[in-house]
Amino acid sequence: MENLSKCEANYVPLTPLTFLKRAASIYANRTSIIYEGTRFTWRQTYDRCRRLASSLRSLNVVKNTVVSVLAPNVPATYEMHFAVPMAGAVLNTINSRLDSKTIATILRHSEAKVFFVDYQFVPLAREALKLLMEDSPESCLVAAESLIPLVIVIDDIDSPTGVRLGELEYEQMVQMGNPRFESGEIEDEWDPIALNYTSGTTSEPKGVVYSHRGAYLSTLSLILGWEMGTEPVYLWSLPMFHCNGWTFTWGTAARGGTNVCLRHTTAYDMYRNIFLHKVTHMCCAPIIFNILLEAKPHERQQIPSPPVQILTGGAPPPATLLEKIEPLGFRVTHAYGLTEATGPALVCEWQSKWNDLPRHDQSKLKSRQGVTILTLADVDVKDSETMVSVPRDGKSIGEIVLRGSSLMKGYFKDENATAKAFKDGWFQTGDVGVIHPDGYLEIKDRSKDVIISGGENISSVEVENILYKHPRILEAAVVAMPHPRWGESPCAFVSVKKNRNGKTDDIKEADIIAFCRKNLSHFMVPKKVEFWPELPKTSTGKIQKFQLRAIAKSFVLKESNNQINKKANKDHQPHEQILSLSRL
Amino acid sequence: MENLSKCEANYVPLTPLTFLKRAASIYANRTSIIYEGTRFTWRQTYDRCRRLASSLRSLNVVKNTVVSVLAPNVPATYEMHFAVPMAGAVLNTINSRLDSKTIATILRHSEAKVFFVDYQFVPLAREALKLLMEDSPESCLVAAESLIPLVIVIDDIDSPTGVRLGELEYEQMVQMGNPRFESGEIEDEWDPIALNYTSGTTSEPKGVVYSHRGAYLSTLSLILGWEMGTEPVYLWSLPMFHCNGWTFTWGTAARGGTNVCLRHTTAYDMYRNIFLHKVTHMCCAPIIFNILLEAKPHERQQIPSPPVQILTGGAPPPATLLEKIEPLGFRVTHAYGLTEATGPALVCEWQSKWNDLPRHDQSKLKSRQGVTILTLADVDVKDSETMVSVPRDGKSIGEIVLRGSSLMKGYFKDENATAKAFKDGWFQTGDVGVIHPDGYLEIKDRSKDVIISGGENISSVEVENILYKHPRILEAAVVAMPHPRWGESPCAFVSVKKNRNGKTDDIKEADIIAFCRKNLSHFMVPKKVEFWPELPKTSTGKIQKFQLRAIAKSFVLKESNNQINKKANKDHQPHEQILSLSRL
Repeated sequence: MENLSKCEANYVPLTPLTFLKRAASIYANRTSIIYEGTRFTWRQTYDRCRRLASSLRSLNVVKNTVVSVLAPNVPATYEMHFAVPMAGAVLNTINSRLDSKTIATILRHSEAKVFFVDYQFVPLAREALKLLMEDSPESCLVAAESLIPLVIVIDDIDSPTGVRLGELEYEQMVQMGNPRFESGEIEDEWDPIALNYTSGTTSEPKGVVYSHRGAYLSTLSLILGWEMGTEPVYLWSLPMFHCNGWTFTWGTAARGGTNVCLRHTTAYDMYRNIFLHKVTHMCCAPIIFNILLEAKPHERQQIPSPPVQILTGGAPPPATLLEKIEPLGFRVTHAYGLTEATGPALVCEWQSKWNDLPRHDQSKLKSRQGVTILTLADVDVKDSETMVSVPRDGKSIGEIVLRGSSLMKGYFKDENATAKAFKDGWFQTGDVGVIHPDGYLEIKDRSKDVIISGGENISSVEVENILYKHPRILEAAVVAMPHPRWGESPCAFVSVKKNRNGKTDDIKEADIIAFCRKNLSHFMVPKKVEFWPELPKTSTGKIQKFQLRAIAKSFVLKESNNQINKKANKDHQPHEQILSLSRL
Repeated sequence: MENLSKCEANYVPLTPLTFLKRAASIYANRTSIIYEGTRFTWRQTYDRCRRLASSLRSLNVVKNTVVSVLAPNVPATYEMHFAVPMAGAVLNTINSRLDSKTIATILRHSEAKVFFVDYQFVPLAREALKLLMEDSPESCLVAAESLIPLVIVIDDIDSPTGVRLGELEYEQMVQMGNPRFESGEIEDEWDPIALNYTSGTTSEPKGVVYSHRGAYLSTLSLILGWEMGTEPVYLWSLPMFHCNGWTFTWGTAARGGTNVCLRHTTAYDMYRNIFLHKVTHMCCAPIIFNILLEAKPHERQQIPSPPVQILTGGAPPPATLLEKIEPLGFRVTHAYGLTEATGPALVCEWQSKWNDLPRHDQSKLKSRQGVTILTLADVDVKDSETMVSVPRDGKSIGEIVLRGSSLMKGYFKDENATAKAFKDGWFQTGDVGVIHPDGYLEIKDRSKDVIISGGENISSVEVENILYKHPRILEAAVVAMPHPRWGESPCAFVSVKKNRNGKTDDIKEADIIAFCRKNLSHFMVPKKVEFWPELPKTSTGKIQKFQLRAIAKSFVLKESNNQINKKANKDHQPHEQILSLSRL
């Protein structure tokens, strides 16, 4: 039986590209994309993607060429999820909340040959390109041109603006292409399909590479885990630049769904589109719940039944938030994931026996991270030192580790980080959690060096590196501080050098924040800066961040506890004590 | 990005075995199996499978060893779907409707080392083993023992009978085993997991080999295609020996479902189990519809809502049958497949726009074979000669061809048949169909050499070979004849040698049928034998089966048209003409 060899008929490389071809064949006349007044069918989407792929080929985009895109959730971003790999290339969607410097770093590191830019982000892209050119080492000046990607602007397809950056425009590229273009088969399912930069735990963004196989398997898993049937109407409230929209860019094609594209995730736009197009499914970070909950009466619409299915993740949703959002006509499924896992790796699969519990208990169960998606071979919680599994008692804490074919290939051009991430046959998430006796996993602490603010990862190391660049800063440590709106936000603890008068009090919080705003993406800027004569350290000289974290936690607790009675305040006394002992 | 290599963490071989481990972890206390008074949970099922796997290992069952099983849909058959591959071996489920001779052929061809036999089939197995021993060539006598598999009886777990065949018994094997047995990882997802013999188009049954990868992908596809959510209650009305229960042996574990096992598919047993255990899903050939429809009042139970989902296939269900079965509380999804495709390859995916059509139009749409399951890369209908795709007009006829990773590895020990089946990068089904403009495929004629009777494939060539062994038969041709209950049944056309008196009329239909019953599995025996002086042939001497098929069709048409007016009869005149021209 072993000598039965693979052949073209029975061993076809797994790739999400088959989903589009299939959709064009069997859902040909179903609506694939709605964006304001613009609509396409699956047959049209397939044609447009083939056209764009052929145009890319004529621009010398070949196998493993990186094609970057900086755009909101418009039809072009969706189409590129198929067109770019159809041309054999690798799609790199860039987080549009990043600053020009980080974007320049990504363009340089990825060696992108083509850079698609939505008209709205032309100023940001122009700035990034300028930095990219300035930073090119002189020795490269002759070859400098090859370091600068070809720029193609994506004008608004529904209401063109005429904004340009260079000669080429997206729609023109599509129209020029050949709708009968045949991409040929993917040679190997291990070939890369996407490159997604994550702020992870280090200062430089790391390039997470997905294979066709991994993307394919993750897509199937998430459809299964969320039980998304055929013909969903999917609202693009989750940025496609987050793990390729948690694979639903490909998943809606697999299900013959309709993609409702959104330029802005305002309450008005979301409610309007949900109502107009009878949205059935959407994904988002919990921050979007706040936007939906805080909508003004004129921004709201009645959600028709059945409820809109929401898959949420990126940050653990507080049980209280779950309790508030569901009565508005939403039904939440909670997932946990990370860029390295191609989006969600765990889904809090609902059990029918929970149906009869009170709503609050249900929300508590739902706020747990859950169980592995089907294509992940295994999850475990291990002692980071010994790599021994912790008992499944809902109490024993350890590091969450994953393994399975839906994980990333590794970090682009970073062998060390790749080797470190894949240790002893497991991927180390850096997140800390427990396993309950029923097999459901719950996160107790995200990776110590990552702050999750409004669904975006912030590397504390990256922020600290910028702080250290300030001429007056001696020591800096950045930790997560609870934030009622963003979940967490960065809080900086710094000690400063004395000025010529031997004073330190001439430098203020506002100065440091302004300095950060100049040098960091705005969402990464510390919301609070604390001045200390010296930061607490271990005997070996390491800053004791756990102390700072406890203090940062107390800031918000203190504020929110102002109106609470003494007894409740007592619960937080330990933090207060640390505070009074260590503060300036 | 190419130099990012696979590692144990991110490239885990795809295998359905992960579904059981996952089920044991996250659905630990959910009921996995119900069989009369016996119940297991997923934790217990995992333990029992590990025990059995370790016992198999101690019997020297190693990688690629074939383990055969002849049993109805009892818990043991289900457990072996995991235990056998956990031991590294290949599961061979044998169709219990076969005769002892064919079973002996399968045991010999598969080189099975272990043979599990349900107590009910001990007489059949004993007969097969006897034939196996008799047929062993003399030169092998010394090594004869190795040709005879180790026999293990499966006694009824719910009401033990004490019937034995040799020393070993299934439950004892389970109890002896180690519940902490670790099977270790599958080395290669291309490794074989199952071996299923099919009567296909030739006289000898062919051994279809599935890989772990193919089984895994097919399982995911069918859950997706049928939209089977978590916690299904699945009734085993489809034999597990048919393509491993169309992969739902593995699929129910993936979904944390409950397997309701059935020894007999009588109307009484099916209704009783559906009602008692609130069955949500079941698969079956359309013949089961008849059993359910013809149930006597005391055998019936009211089906509670929501309706029981039925996935049907194996033979095209007539639209009229669909119309009758659904009002009883069932909802039918129609699939098309074959053993080589690991069960269903196409599913008639329902489109919401069909909801408003009259029931009869719905049934007509539903009786089409549909669209590819997600893990099948492609389907096409091609001219068999030129291999050019036919137009999608619902009229142009061609051969249905498939490609994708859910197809078989090939035929065991049959390179020629494997090479012939995989032609030009496609698997040739031998079935004839059209593609409608909406992308849905409809079968117009099953493979010319296969007769599907009550969901079982019958090879016309196999029946012909037996007929040719009759001393008086000169020529024989077997074709499908429509049958109101079984869908199709075999009809034989023969010409016979003259006896010493120069006569042919001394040999009767009953003689031929009796001869066939002695030499064939009973379901393969022709229901009708027609005597002709000579069979119609082409100029090259090939029997013109298309003529015989038309005639066989008219037999039933004639009968059913007895009460119909002349005008309707006129529609069938062409057949009548052929009949009168060519018959004796």
